[in-house]
Amino acid sequence: MKATTKPWIFTASCPSVIGTVDVVTGYMAEAGNYIDEIHSFDDREANRFFIRVEFYPQSADFTADEFTAEFTSRSKQFEMEWELTPPNHRPRVAIMVSKYDHCLNDLLYRYRTGQLNIEVPVIISNHPDLESLAQWHNIPYYHLPITADTKPQQEAQIRELIEQYDAELVVLARYMQVLSSEMCQYLDGRAINIHHSLLPGFKGARPYHQAWEKGVKMVGATAHYVNDDLDEGPIISQGIQTVDHAHYPEDLVAKGQDVERVTLFNAIKCHVEKRVFLNGKRTVVFGR
Amino acid sequence: MKATTKPWIFTASCPSVIGTVDVVTGYMAEAGNYIDEIHSFDDREANRFFIRVEFYPQSADFTADEFTAEFTSRSKQFEMEWELTPPNHRPRVAIMVSKYDHCLNDLLYRYRTGQLNIEVPVIISNHPDLESLAQWHNIPYYHLPITADTKPQQEAQIRELIEQYDAELVVLARYMQVLSSEMCQYLDGRAINIHHSLLPGFKGARPYHQAWEKGVKMVGATAHYVNDDLDEGPIISQGIQTVDHAHYPEDLVAKGQDVERVTLFNAIKCHVEKRVFLNGKRTVVFGR
Amino acid sequence: MKATTKPWIFTASCPSVIGTVDVVTGYMAEAGNYIDEIHSFDDREANRFFIRVEFYPQSADFTADEFTAEFTSRSKQFEMEWELTPPNHRPRVAIMVSKYDHCLNDLLYRYRTGQLNIEVPVIISNHPDLESLAQWHNIPYYHLPITADTKPQQEAQIRELIEQYDAELVVLARYMQVLSSEMCQYLDGRAINIHHSLLPGFKGARPYHQAWEKGVKMVGATAHYVNDDLDEGPIISQGIQTVDHAHYPEDLVAKGQDVERVTLFNAIKCHVEKRVFLNGKRTVVFGR
Amino acid sequence: MKATTKPWIFTASCPSVIGTVDVVTGYMAEAGNYIDEIHSFDDREANRFFIRVEFYPQSADFTADEFTAEFTSRSKQFEMEWELTPPNHRPRVAIMVSKYDHCLNDLLYRYRTGQLNIEVPVIISNHPDLESLAQWHNIPYYHLPITADTKPQQEAQIRELIEQYDAELVVLARYMQVLSSEMCQYLDGRAINIHHSLLPGFKGARPYHQAWEKGVKMVGATAHYVNDDLDEGPIISQGIQTVDHAHYPEDLVAKGQDVERVTLFNAIKCHVEKRVFLNGKRTVVFGR
Repeated sequence: MKATTKPWIFTASCPSVIGTVDVVTGYMAEAGNYIDEIHSFDDREANRFFIRVEFYPQSADFTADEFTAEFTSRSKQFEMEWELTPPNHRPRVAIMVSKYDHCLNDLLYRYRTGQLNIEVPVIISNHPDLESLAQWHNIPYYHLPITADTKPQQEAQIRELIEQYDAELVVLARYMQVLSSEMCQYLDGRAINIHHSLLPGFKGARPYHQAWEKGVKMVGATAHYVNDDLDEGPIISQGIQTVDHAHYPEDLVAKGQDVERVTLFNAIKCHVEKRVFLNGKRTVVFGR
Repeated sequence: MKATTKPWIFTASCPSVIGTVDVVTGYMAEAGNYIDEIHSFDDREANRFFIRVEFYPQSADFTADEFTAEFTSRSKQFEMEWELTPPNHRPRVAIMVSKYDHCLNDLLYRYRTGQLNIEVPVIISNHPDLESLAQWHNIPYYHLPITADTKPQQEAQIRELIEQYDAELVVLARYMQVLSSEMCQYLDGRAINIHHSLLPGFKGARPYHQAWEKGVKMVGATAHYVNDDLDEGPIISQGIQTVDHAHYPEDLVAKGQDVERVTLFNAIKCHVEKRVFLNGKRTVVFGR
Repeated sequence: MKATTKPWIFTASCPSVIGTVDVVTGYMAEAGNYIDEIHSFDDREANRFFIRVEFYPQSADFTADEFTAEFTSRSKQFEMEWELTPPNHRPRVAIMVSKYDHCLNDLLYRYRTGQLNIEVPVIISNHPDLESLAQWHNIPYYHLPITADTKPQQEAQIRELIEQYDAELVVLARYMQVLSSEMCQYLDGRAINIHHSLLPGFKGARPYHQAWEKGVKMVGATAHYVNDDLDEGPIISQGIQTVDHAHYPEDLVAKGQDVERVTLFNAIKCHVEKRVFLNGKRTVVFGR
Repeated sequence: MKATTKPWIFTASCPSVIGTVDVVTGYMAEAGNYIDEIHSFDDREANRFFIRVEFYPQSADFTADEFTAEFTSRSKQFEMEWELTPPNHRPRVAIMVSKYDHCLNDLLYRYRTGQLNIEVPVIISNHPDLESLAQWHNIPYYHLPITADTKPQQEAQIRELIEQYDAELVVLARYMQVLSSEMCQYLDGRAINIHHSLLPGFKGARPYHQAWEKGVKMVGATAHYVNDDLDEGPIISQGIQTVDHAHYPEDLVAKGQDVERVTLFNAIKCHVEKRVFLNGKRTVVFGR
């Protein structure tokens, strides 16, 4: 059972009833799939069940199609929403940025070295500043400046790029433009944003300056899914950094960057590894 | 220069001008006081200077009166507010509680074992539950139940007890009553409260339930001075604890208790060691 | 599926082969047991499988005996070592201490308030100092002073007390005596010790003094099972605390106490909730 | 007193006697130098005093030469070793690497964005792999492969490069070659190494594999000055990361990289800002 390859990943959620685990693990055993790791969670309040299984097929004939054909009928009675992710899946991730490059630099480093198992087919920005960084990584960079007047056209352009480059996830890596409501809906559930505060504290603009005004002793960062309510999307991960009275706003900005980039990386990694489930306004994250 | 005894502590603040450090350290040298540790901070925004000095007098004749007589005239030109704390000073701290005992138990343990160099002359509660804990530590316990109607009289009673027992600091160790505006003003700057969230997030009632609703991945606690604006007093210390989707509100309540008690202890220790300075709505804390 | 009661807990380990998950979850489904939470781990190096399941029987007739009768035959082919823990199980924990009381005080607090779901039938010490703390909690306290000469008799006495009070777990809460080899074997796998360093760093005596000599910037604590090799037993949990140059050994001793007690508590809680599995010289801990 | 420029930094150490603070601050006041921040520490064991002062000269005529002329005579009686660092000082830092690039990538990012106020005139490696990264930052890269036979010549070559490029600090950013005793002596006190464990735990080769063998629940990193005793140089900073049973050695390697780079960055930043003092086998670090 040595892991010479990566596992297949099965994820599912459905209403909480007896037999939800068994329908999954029973089929796995029958089909000769070796389960390497299993996580489940049953939300008592929402009455909803979540499961994630890593497995290694033992049969040389294993195919996703066969799995689907066999499992679909078994799972039907449970109203199960499920997904099967093959070991060689590398999600295509479009990154959006403005001028700050600490998150972009970090993500590209982890992409380049294989820490993040993704493709980055395109980088989109409302500023030209970070183009050379993109170029060094051989990634197309689109500079789409935005004003109040041009926002609708430019957002349309962005949507076109996302589709043209077939991105299944969009990462807002300190993209400093408020998205329109249409754009938020378009990205709902498939875009991750990093906000530079411990949400719901310090929503909106200049959170480090707000934090300094309040004299807090910790600053943080929050990675969350984009939804229609600005800075209110379901939280995936959070990080913090202690600070003291000698930190002026510019010091908080500098010190917070390390937390932002690690927090964003953690969220993307969990998403890519299918560890994150939407659960109403909250998330289930099967950690590592 | 071996520390066989505790040091004297000198603290001061004044407007930022040249010579503020020198007037302190110059006099210390002249008077033969050995400086063991010195912290200073100059707030560029507020244009205010803060200093804390630990020293060991080398002269057998050293007295606070002489220090005061000598230093007052030197410091006058700097509009310096200063304080001299002798090594044997043990501040008298009145503790107020309701039903939760995790903070009280922790504080009394540290008081009993000398980790907190304080006296606890009195414990005041709006519930009878924690009386036996007080008794085991031989501390008078006053049960003053409070209703909307009796609040003015009971608060008057509390003020009387604070004065009768000569408390220089009041600690609200999960005291679950909203204080009246008069009471807040009475306690302004000399009472420390523990709030069970990372302020300014989740102000007000049931912060762990608020945190659960938002699906946060970290819960925290904040120790702050009481002032007139509920949950808005200057922050002294904060602590956090990571959590995940499997934590229901009652789990957050349980898990947060360790953070609350350590955060409150840290704030009291810093206050008692004269490490905390009020600086407008914020604090300067010379950490250890 | 609301949790009005505590769950039953099923734990097992066996060699890694196909079907190990299914034999558990299949029976659970058949028997009408609702699975609330499931963790598994497959050690690729040791080729060993570990599983922990929390479940709520749905049948009013559910009994441990029936579970045992039914499951034993199914699990036999997997060489499974398994255990079923009923919701009302409260393990009996004997605590051993010397003079430091920070761990004992913490454990008794959590025992008294129900944070730790245990019974503490007896406290054993080689010093008389902590008797009054035990008395306040109505727990028998045995003072068994130990010298090199009396160690064999006294350890025999301790074993007798452990059996007389029917303790299934022994906690060495800063018990400052080196145990004999016989005693270690007797306690193997059912005693938890707290060592005041981040093992394997600073084994042996006076770890905080060793840490100070080395000028480390962090001190830690390690809770581990007792086995025959002093300070080498399988690690359950570790905690750390940052320090700086201004911390003399006595400051490290004081500051480390908070880490020690929380680290020990975490280990005991995990053990009691059946989250810890021995895996050779290491442990599997299904965290919360 | 607004900080529109960076401060001058004064650092000193000397035996502990009365008047050490005063000789510094007295002269600062007399010379019209505004003190922005002051840290001092008095080591009771070593009987040695350390001080760091940030100041802004108020006189337009202020020069380092005048400071030196004036202060030298005053400080003489204290046997003070002192140093004056002008605001525009940017230390030249030579970086040595092997194949791992996570530390190098991080340092170059912080160098490029001004987070680290340094020059990087040269990068030296025993492997060719990281040349393109150096090129993108326009930094000369020297590939000096090393075998047991060629070590003396190659180390001589490295010393020549350090001198040719006038580096005042050398950073071993995961340079995976054991240095000869001569080289260690040459670098004594002016080279910083990052070791991927919480020293003194897991010295030597493959520390993450050692950590996995022991089943630790935390892995760490240590940045320390190079001295003659391998992995025993004075510690500047340490960092940790929690892990669990599901982390195989390769996972520890991956997870530890974030701790390594942040820990190394912290050490270099403190060194560059003159916050670190050697104190026998330990360090004094006046933190931020």
